[in-house]
Amino acid sequence: MAGSEGGEMTDYIPFGNDESLTREALPLEGRDEASLPPPGSPDIVIARAVPPRPITEVAERLGIEPDQLLPIGHDKAKLPHDFTASLAERPQGKLVLVTAITPTPAGEGKTTTTVGLGDGLSRLGHKAAICLREPSLGPCFGMKGGAAGGGRAQVIPMEDINLHFTGDFHAITSAHNLLSALIDNHLHWGNELGIDPERITWKRVMDMNDRALRHLTVGQGVPRQDGFDITAASEIMAILCLASDLADLQRRLGEIVVARNRDGAPVLARDLKADGAMAVLLKQALAPNLVQTLEHNPAFVHGGPFANIAHGCNSVMATRSALSLADIVVTEAGFGADLGAEKFFNIKCRQAGLVPGAVVVVATLRALKMHGGVAREALGEPNPAAVRRGARNLARHVENMRDFGVPLLVAVNQFDQDSPAEHAVLREACDALGVEMVVSSHWRDGSRGSEALAERVAALLDAPATRLSLTYGDDVRLEDKVRAIATRLYGASDISLEDKARRQLEEYEAMGYGHLPVCIAKTQYSFAADPAMTGLAAGHVLPIRETELAAGAGFVVVLCGSIMRMPGMPRRPASAGIRLDDHGEIEGLS
Amino acid sequence: MAGSEGGEMTDYIPFGNDESLTREALPLEGRDEASLPPPGSPDIVIARAVPPRPITEVAERLGIEPDQLLPIGHDKAKLPHDFTASLAERPQGKLVLVTAITPTPAGEGKTTTTVGLGDGLSRLGHKAAICLREPSLGPCFGMKGGAAGGGRAQVIPMEDINLHFTGDFHAITSAHNLLSALIDNHLHWGNELGIDPERITWKRVMDMNDRALRHLTVGQGVPRQDGFDITAASEIMAILCLASDLADLQRRLGEIVVARNRDGAPVLARDLKADGAMAVLLKQALAPNLVQTLEHNPAFVHGGPFANIAHGCNSVMATRSALSLADIVVTEAGFGADLGAEKFFNIKCRQAGLVPGAVVVVATLRALKMHGGVAREALGEPNPAAVRRGARNLARHVENMRDFGVPLLVAVNQFDQDSPAEHAVLREACDALGVEMVVSSHWRDGSRGSEALAERVAALLDAPATRLSLTYGDDVRLEDKVRAIATRLYGASDISLEDKARRQLEEYEAMGYGHLPVCIAKTQYSFAADPAMTGLAAGHVLPIRETELAAGAGFVVVLCGSIMRMPGMPRRPASAGIRLDDHGEIEGLS
Repeated sequence: MAGSEGGEMTDYIPFGNDESLTREALPLEGRDEASLPPPGSPDIVIARAVPPRPITEVAERLGIEPDQLLPIGHDKAKLPHDFTASLAERPQGKLVLVTAITPTPAGEGKTTTTVGLGDGLSRLGHKAAICLREPSLGPCFGMKGGAAGGGRAQVIPMEDINLHFTGDFHAITSAHNLLSALIDNHLHWGNELGIDPERITWKRVMDMNDRALRHLTVGQGVPRQDGFDITAASEIMAILCLASDLADLQRRLGEIVVARNRDGAPVLARDLKADGAMAVLLKQALAPNLVQTLEHNPAFVHGGPFANIAHGCNSVMATRSALSLADIVVTEAGFGADLGAEKFFNIKCRQAGLVPGAVVVVATLRALKMHGGVAREALGEPNPAAVRRGARNLARHVENMRDFGVPLLVAVNQFDQDSPAEHAVLREACDALGVEMVVSSHWRDGSRGSEALAERVAALLDAPATRLSLTYGDDVRLEDKVRAIATRLYGASDISLEDKARRQLEEYEAMGYGHLPVCIAKTQYSFAADPAMTGLAAGHVLPIRETELAAGAGFVVVLCGSIMRMPGMPRRPASAGIRLDDHGEIEGLS
Repeated sequence: MAGSEGGEMTDYIPFGNDESLTREALPLEGRDEASLPPPGSPDIVIARAVPPRPITEVAERLGIEPDQLLPIGHDKAKLPHDFTASLAERPQGKLVLVTAITPTPAGEGKTTTTVGLGDGLSRLGHKAAICLREPSLGPCFGMKGGAAGGGRAQVIPMEDINLHFTGDFHAITSAHNLLSALIDNHLHWGNELGIDPERITWKRVMDMNDRALRHLTVGQGVPRQDGFDITAASEIMAILCLASDLADLQRRLGEIVVARNRDGAPVLARDLKADGAMAVLLKQALAPNLVQTLEHNPAFVHGGPFANIAHGCNSVMATRSALSLADIVVTEAGFGADLGAEKFFNIKCRQAGLVPGAVVVVATLRALKMHGGVAREALGEPNPAAVRRGARNLARHVENMRDFGVPLLVAVNQFDQDSPAEHAVLREACDALGVEMVVSSHWRDGSRGSEALAERVAALLDAPATRLSLTYGDDVRLEDKVRAIATRLYGASDISLEDKARRQLEEYEAMGYGHLPVCIAKTQYSFAADPAMTGLAAGHVLPIRETELAAGAGFVVVLCGSIMRMPGMPRRPASAGIRLDDHGEIEGLS
């Protein structure tokens, strides 16, 4: 939500969803600009000032007929499974990945840039679509800020998307906890499978920031240690995002390893006959969601794993459907390129056989200044020297992306306070790296501001097809896969494993899971496991605390440092400022 | 799901939702009967053989325009808040309550009769609608059987209704657990409100049968005892069902008492600034859901508290909206009349100012035989003597309903095995009671089978308006409210209170909550707190174990005997038989 911080709810324009659909909805570019809130207005004010088009109209831009859609309200829809299955043989469009430098509290605007780039490509006449992740409910009430873009580069309906949306997260929570309940129920009724209660690895989940649930004691006859993760970290979330169709979904659910039995052998979800009921709970959730940008271009918003504690990419179903329906598809991966993009390549592309045609690395001068040592309060001041120092963070990410062999450029998400001197310093740094830099003002100006970025990205896509180079092969040992990421991408000198973690990795290999890729869970604020090592961490040793086998998702989770898979809320949760006003309209959600 | 037990998935007719909507949907009564599965086919086979009409067409029968609806798929919709608010001044239709004898494993068919009666009234030319509760997900995977009626008296789309439906339960779970998280977060950050961690009464909820979560230890710095209830038992569920509009919803949420502080004073959700965010989470869930019966008549399915551990009635919003849109509205209250109907009158009607024009008490010969001492295996044999013995259970319920002063009749939900001799015995018993008895074959024949029942109910409604007589006044002491229910309705000689329960009731009175009605949580299988006392319990003492204040819902929960608010699953959970078939269709859900 670049640029939205501190924005007050002034100039509130009350266009409810119902009214908006009976009004004539004009394309943003065709509207009288004077009728739009001025640039810099709070995101929600801008979002509410633009009446959504009926989702059937948005779908028509992709050649989807109204009766091929499952409507959810007037402005959201799912693509039913028979329709997505019918797309399999179509020619595929080109894929663009948007990633970013290491995040800071200053904001980078990766989602905003994804939206802006998609709108810019549409403005140029390309048949374009974007693919984003769905936000999690939990953080909305903890830390301020949703995840639907910002300024004039947003997806709508913003409130729905940030709240229950089409229910996908709830379905994942239900499916996950059904399996948990079946495990304890199995213990309760005599434990025929001989599950070792001390070696149950399947926890419970909730879509809430609730630190009190991290560790708890459950059960009655047989009390045992357990805990809750946030839903975005659930293996079911990863399975939903990586499954290629309903049959693959059900198969993967069966493969989940929930525990060891008393002989040390894995106990699968299939052994508990849980896979079918879980698949039934997830059937509709697996269907991709379609919404629109503020400029009424199609946006797929589907699947929502975080990129720090999970694999950080939207669903394969949505990406593949979009590639069958559009000529260019812009997608994003979460947090910095060390997390989201690395997993996008080594997990999502590896499993789904995707090869992007271009990568966009997003940076802002504000964030680079923070990486260059400037305090948040001083970010408004021009400081070219700090930008130069901070650009070392950008440089590492650019080099890392080159490692994958895909053409790339740097997009600078422009803020009003940016100074020409700072841009010049950054351009020098990019020239030195041999990478093109494009300044883009989509946050302020919508697609008019991202036209240049869109042109340059389209030019990159005209290059001959890329050959993707992954960081490690399937046959490398699990420990060495982690080491390859740490040393080649994080600038670490080595990794260190606690005994427990080493034993676990060896056990997975002995059980036949050694071919899986690894999914690193690590702070997003640093190349290291220590969030304080901003800028350019180098020569550090990456500490591996423990691991989890996600056999259904098809990866091994590797937990580094003190990363937690259930967040907490701050002293003053955002929920305190959220309520219904006297007209029943939502107030304070942003 | 009367009559469905043991039904195998034979003669499966694969009409998916998508295909069905492109077919010509004929009213059931106009279809070639030969094209329908034969009477007695499994519920799901019948449900899938009837293509749903577009929900806009169903809504038109109530004079609702398509743009006044919020569609959820093609066959479900919500009535938006601006629309329901616009109904307030319209004349109100007449309300019929369907209740039943004490339930047995043989099945009574209260929902089935509600659907059949509604369809019968429509067949006679009345503008009728029905109001049902939404099923909970949890029991679907534990005990076999959904809650969408049965035979040719069902609401559709059955699978959606039994699974996530329109997301209302999930919204309730989220809102409930947000408040829980905010409590523990408040403790974590210094506990400014001085909450006594030992006196936190607000638990967590999950829509799952998960006994392992009944009791647990949460928290980190300050571990404390906690537990999960099933979502249907949440106070938020009751608030959603009793709120008159969005403003009332937000107000009630603020009134929730979550704990005592160190001075013993109540701590409210409002003190934690949780009410607004909870209301935002519940905004869409408060809007009533509209679906259809197999005969394409309108059915509101909204809100889902169980009647044993909660107040057991669908939402006031749905009932009131239906009364503004239809001339006759048929609704049901859960389990036997001692639970559901008692709470319907003493809680729902008291709070919402509703007065039903007629009550239908549903019985089956099979269930009466069980109350008369016959084992389940022997229910297929005619046994008039057992019917006579079991009719004492019916008689108590009939007398209880008379206590409320509303005209009533007995509906016998017919099974194929019913014998004329048994019907004759039951008719004698009803004659002796001075109550009319009508046999109805809606399960087998749809509205053709319920025409007689509909005629007789319509005749009851022609009587002059009733003056409702509640079981106790607001100003009676809480303990005496429980005693009045136990002695006047359950046939108990008295109640007994554990010391803790007595202290709690006195405390609520001291805090100013003495005027609230009581919501009794008790086994559904008996007039007593002991589920084994089937038939006609009498002269027993009702044991009160503990109580809970539900100040936002506006009642005091009174827990009797060993009733649990988080169910478990059986040794062989139904989930084991549920899965997606090779075409991605749901199999085994019933």
